[in-house]
Amino acid sequence: MKLSKRALEIQASPIRKLMPHAVDAKSRGIKVYHLNIGQPDIPTPPQMMKVYHEFSEKVLAYGPSQGLEVYQQGLVHYYKRLGISLDTKDIIVTTAGSEAVTFAMMVAANEGDEIIVPEPFYTNYNGFATMASIKLQAITTLAENGFALPNDEAFEALIGPKTRAIMLCNPGNPTGAVYSNEELFRVAALCKKHGLFLISDEVYREFIYDGLCHTSVLQIPDFDANAIMVDSVSKRYSACGARIGCIVSRNRDLMSATLKFAQARLCPPTIDQLAANACVYLPDEYFHEMVAEYQSRRDLVYNELTNIDGIICKKPQGAFYIVAKLPIENAEDFVTWMLDEFQIDGKTVMAAPAEGFYATPGLGKNELRLAYILNKEALKDAMRIFRAGLTEYKKTHK
Amino acid sequence: MKLSKRALEIQASPIRKLMPHAVDAKSRGIKVYHLNIGQPDIPTPPQMMKVYHEFSEKVLAYGPSQGLEVYQQGLVHYYKRLGISLDTKDIIVTTAGSEAVTFAMMVAANEGDEIIVPEPFYTNYNGFATMASIKLQAITTLAENGFALPNDEAFEALIGPKTRAIMLCNPGNPTGAVYSNEELFRVAALCKKHGLFLISDEVYREFIYDGLCHTSVLQIPDFDANAIMVDSVSKRYSACGARIGCIVSRNRDLMSATLKFAQARLCPPTIDQLAANACVYLPDEYFHEMVAEYQSRRDLVYNELTNIDGIICKKPQGAFYIVAKLPIENAEDFVTWMLDEFQIDGKTVMAAPAEGFYATPGLGKNELRLAYILNKEALKDAMRIFRAGLTEYKKTHK
Repeated sequence: MKLSKRALEIQASPIRKLMPHAVDAKSRGIKVYHLNIGQPDIPTPPQMMKVYHEFSEKVLAYGPSQGLEVYQQGLVHYYKRLGISLDTKDIIVTTAGSEAVTFAMMVAANEGDEIIVPEPFYTNYNGFATMASIKLQAITTLAENGFALPNDEAFEALIGPKTRAIMLCNPGNPTGAVYSNEELFRVAALCKKHGLFLISDEVYREFIYDGLCHTSVLQIPDFDANAIMVDSVSKRYSACGARIGCIVSRNRDLMSATLKFAQARLCPPTIDQLAANACVYLPDEYFHEMVAEYQSRRDLVYNELTNIDGIICKKPQGAFYIVAKLPIENAEDFVTWMLDEFQIDGKTVMAAPAEGFYATPGLGKNELRLAYILNKEALKDAMRIFRAGLTEYKKTHK
Repeated sequence: MKLSKRALEIQASPIRKLMPHAVDAKSRGIKVYHLNIGQPDIPTPPQMMKVYHEFSEKVLAYGPSQGLEVYQQGLVHYYKRLGISLDTKDIIVTTAGSEAVTFAMMVAANEGDEIIVPEPFYTNYNGFATMASIKLQAITTLAENGFALPNDEAFEALIGPKTRAIMLCNPGNPTGAVYSNEELFRVAALCKKHGLFLISDEVYREFIYDGLCHTSVLQIPDFDANAIMVDSVSKRYSACGARIGCIVSRNRDLMSATLKFAQARLCPPTIDQLAANACVYLPDEYFHEMVAEYQSRRDLVYNELTNIDGIICKKPQGAFYIVAKLPIENAEDFVTWMLDEFQIDGKTVMAAPAEGFYATPGLGKNELRLAYILNKEALKDAMRIFRAGLTEYKKTHK
């Protein structure tokens, strides 16, 4: 039986594909520090857990396709605190950020159309694009200059008759880059000039360090027709398993069409929406403490990495990832070797090879993404083992 | 800003599109009996609710993309009780049946490919097909002969080089038809002859009346390469808001490819999977009581309908829907009129116009789908009002 082309071509998750090696290592009694996946260790707010514990409806029923009204209103409140004024009609609740990205791509682009994305980018954009038969056009950004956005000429060289959108992740996964207003306004002007949507994935909005500010695509002046924002509660409330996100735009035609996509799948999970709604009313201190914790983790990992000979990386300003260029040829081989052959005191480290975050063949082969999602004691130990592993690996590998 | 063709073309839900009229009626103080949507009124099992109440992990984390192992094992147990032997590798847990249908369509067919579906069919198949740029080829079945499957010649007239699958809903939504082994084996033979997948939507499996038995696509002998089953806990456990389903096939290549789709969206909701898992171990009595209740509701609605002059319908053998051909020209106009202009004792009835369940233009215009998902007292009152409404409507409309 022949499978579809998209089934054959869709990329296996580079974040998850080395998991069998981790499982093997664990079966040999080795403790694996997982820096390969963006699963925060911070406890989920008890206010959220309380909603699960106290749910008292007799029937666990469908909600509206656009999301529960109480949660849409909660989101209006959440965005208002950020200085973004919205109406409930501008928001459709989705099953995590993943579905929001899928809807955004599909409402903007048809099969065969193109969306421009700065690489390295969140690898699952590839999967969503393949499923929707959309082509991602990668525009390369470099570790050496902090993954800043390329200039207009570089973008315009890629814009053709099939280009329908530019897609950004801000703050960036895997880069940790936070785009300046200058960069954002420039890309927005390009989008207006060429009639493109600007899809902005802002799930790491609060993870911003060194006193920087985050600008949302929804805050760009005179840009409502073009701006599509995708969001998720997964990271900011350490609630990855709730699968609650949203797609937001003030372009009403776009939201009407998106609602039809949403109606096809009926609704997002009901109790999880109510649980997410409890988080909307958390005090500001929740984020202050969380961000302080992640900033100190970032500093720790960044300092450890820059103390290793031959590693190139810039200090990330947001999210909780860092991309490091290693003084070896093949980062995937190194990760596999760390899991299969290396340990100190019965422990090893797993990171994500960065090649899968690039669309251009050959790029990122010697790069890794590390997620700093463990407590500092664990991170310190992990970095000690990582450094020793790399030194050992280099003795026998190029 | 131009939206994509699929955004413009995707069908608005015919089940939900008249909802504004219901909202208006309610705002005028009128009670609306909702027979338009498949939201059961049966309480969700307390065993399931208990899982939400007692969830005690500190972090609401991602699960594996294929689903939590404990729930995969639970599903193996559930299917074993039905006489279907499976391995956990044959099962990927999905975000409701909707995602399972999407994955099944996408793994079988590419953009521009075709899938044959007997009409009338579950209207959201249209939405999933439009999103995936797949064409649904409808093969018409008739209320007059209980929506039985057409003969081989009718199927073969539609099978062309782009045909990749036949898709059935068994028991059928909206038809209530339950396919006999003879019908299933015949369609399976056709699929083998032409190299097609047979996608079987079996979310109403337990809703079978008059002592009939249900045969799953997974029970067709020598058919493992072609068989894809999609399933959901929504109806059988009255848990529509949990959004937990699965896709099942013994074709390992197909499941490997489907896993890559699943990895792109990371995972289905975590606590909801654990809650669904509690249902797997419910005693048989749970279904016996539920089916007895629905069978008596079906009898009530069927008897009331057949007592109305000019209505054509066959007694459905499964699911909880009945399609009735009305002695008027336009069922959507009738439903709208019932909501806007009719009431008895401050009450009216909402049903789903069946036209949206047909792909062939013009078909189903004078048909309705009624879902018998209310208790018998409410149903009896609803049917009284429905009958009076139809009589009144006919006085002034064709």
